[in-house]
Amino acid sequence: MKMLINVAERVVADALRGMAQAHPELVVDVENRVIVRRDAPVAGKVGLVSGGGSGHEPLHGGFVGPGMLDAACPGEVFTSPVPDQMVRAAAAVDSGAGVLFIVKNYTGDVLNFDMAAELAEDEGIQVAKVLVQDDVAVTDSLYTAGRRGTGGTLFVEKLAGAAAEEGAPLDRVAAIARRVADVSRSFGVALSAPTTPAKGSPTFDLPVNELELGIGIHGEPGRERRRIMTSGEIADFAVDALLEDRPPNGPVLVLVNGMGATPLLELYGFNAEVQRVLGERRVAVARTLVGNYVTSLDMAGCSVTLCEADEELLRLWDAPVSTPGLRWGR
Amino acid sequence: MKMLINVAERVVADALRGMAQAHPELVVDVENRVIVRRDAPVAGKVGLVSGGGSGHEPLHGGFVGPGMLDAACPGEVFTSPVPDQMVRAAAAVDSGAGVLFIVKNYTGDVLNFDMAAELAEDEGIQVAKVLVQDDVAVTDSLYTAGRRGTGGTLFVEKLAGAAAEEGAPLDRVAAIARRVADVSRSFGVALSAPTTPAKGSPTFDLPVNELELGIGIHGEPGRERRRIMTSGEIADFAVDALLEDRPPNGPVLVLVNGMGATPLLELYGFNAEVQRVLGERRVAVARTLVGNYVTSLDMAGCSVTLCEADEELLRLWDAPVSTPGLRWGR
Repeated sequence: MKMLINVAERVVADALRGMAQAHPELVVDVENRVIVRRDAPVAGKVGLVSGGGSGHEPLHGGFVGPGMLDAACPGEVFTSPVPDQMVRAAAAVDSGAGVLFIVKNYTGDVLNFDMAAELAEDEGIQVAKVLVQDDVAVTDSLYTAGRRGTGGTLFVEKLAGAAAEEGAPLDRVAAIARRVADVSRSFGVALSAPTTPAKGSPTFDLPVNELELGIGIHGEPGRERRRIMTSGEIADFAVDALLEDRPPNGPVLVLVNGMGATPLLELYGFNAEVQRVLGERRVAVARTLVGNYVTSLDMAGCSVTLCEADEELLRLWDAPVSTPGLRWGR
Repeated sequence: MKMLINVAERVVADALRGMAQAHPELVVDVENRVIVRRDAPVAGKVGLVSGGGSGHEPLHGGFVGPGMLDAACPGEVFTSPVPDQMVRAAAAVDSGAGVLFIVKNYTGDVLNFDMAAELAEDEGIQVAKVLVQDDVAVTDSLYTAGRRGTGGTLFVEKLAGAAAEEGAPLDRVAAIARRVADVSRSFGVALSAPTTPAKGSPTFDLPVNELELGIGIHGEPGRERRRIMTSGEIADFAVDALLEDRPPNGPVLVLVNGMGATPLLELYGFNAEVQRVLGERRVAVARTLVGNYVTSLDMAGCSVTLCEADEELLRLWDAPVSTPGLRWGR
């Protein structure tokens, strides 16, 4: 499998150097692997820290900036970052108002963020945590006890980030993050497998006439394989899986997310089918975001995330955000 | 080849419907295939219209909005839009201040925009045109007499768009667009071929251990095939090709562009190598943009575009822009 890289061992370090050069508004510590917004710590503001394996860009480093994360800790590809990164990040963004760790539910991430929280508190930093486990496809997957954290992470980071930017205290920011995690659900589909630089070949075999329904973002197995389906059939399956798991009681934010190699042209077309199914199921759509946000290297495929949004969450969604990967408003 | 589509014939129509639903700030005429900013025509403002084959998203429809294009005309995949679309777009955005057509140098696009300009002028709309032909790789390619228009189009649309937003008259906006086209140069590399929905298989064969240097954005042949190279070697080759063609006399804007299927992680790492080569060649970098902007469906690969920017162009680059694909500032 061909890649645009030098050597597998240096992929993350190379990417961080290139990111630093493209984004002077961020401080990228390539050696210690921490990405911090340049004006951190912001006086009186709760600091938001997330992180996880690399290969899901723009998540998380591309979501650092005003209105979203204060810092991100990238691990090796598909591998948890270590507690030292998280403690450094917490120290860099803590203004005294405390820090929220946003953790996707993978065993390594959970353990390492837990350890980092203890270490940071030993240093006098107040830490709260939120666990994102939005993927309804399967439980107890390859790297996960319980449900996986996937596209819902974008909603947690954006909405809690907006609350923190408004000056909400730590308990309130954490409560909003947990509420968003509670009302977010995702379902993913793979048309091809991702290839990690270390392995150099696809992480699983998917016959040319099959797709995998309920895929994770590290090539973890989904619910089932089927003969290739139309985008309309995929939208029916994915949206029904989401609504069956949690029927929303009000309007939703919709994320139609590309896994990496699926063209934006196809993602927009898939969005039309997702909106059709939501309309048929009488689910009101408040806002829709289409693009590559929570990716799995060069995997072809997509995911759908629904986040039920009351007036407060809708206001936080519309609040300005200024990061490499998500940017609007002032 | 698996795709996230319904049927090949409906790919563009489906995408436009999905785009309309995700972007209420745009008016998407699905039937007539014209995408217009909702507040058009803006009183006293020159209207910017571009278009071309679909499959390069976010170009051009994703660049419609304040500070960039007023309208875009998407053709079928890798196929020119027709004059009727362009005339409709011109009529929708003309406030009386005239319209600039931004045309990538492909035979069909050039002919159709020429015809549309005549038709629009018959309707009393003043039209100026700029031709983008920034790709230094080859001349007289598959769909092109002369050089192809590729990544430089982003700079023309952004910088002329900013000038128009400031209220510059048509001759001035056109002069800026031509100046930007004159000082922009691109070079692309393919690691794989794109697959069009109509064909359903890759548009050319590229052995697993080879890449194509100087590729176009429709799978047109490049300069040569080589055994797989590192990202550092590719950056050396691409940047040297650009500098040999036109050594800049001042700082440059850099676009490190993904062709579609190459992960952002790899694009950032490639950017580090591009910046290294530019440093070695003593070229000053004013701004850098990394991401998927001028794509070729699901092709893996990248391109580099340099645009020499004096103080005026730099100011226009930094000016606010608010489109689905490019957004910053207020």
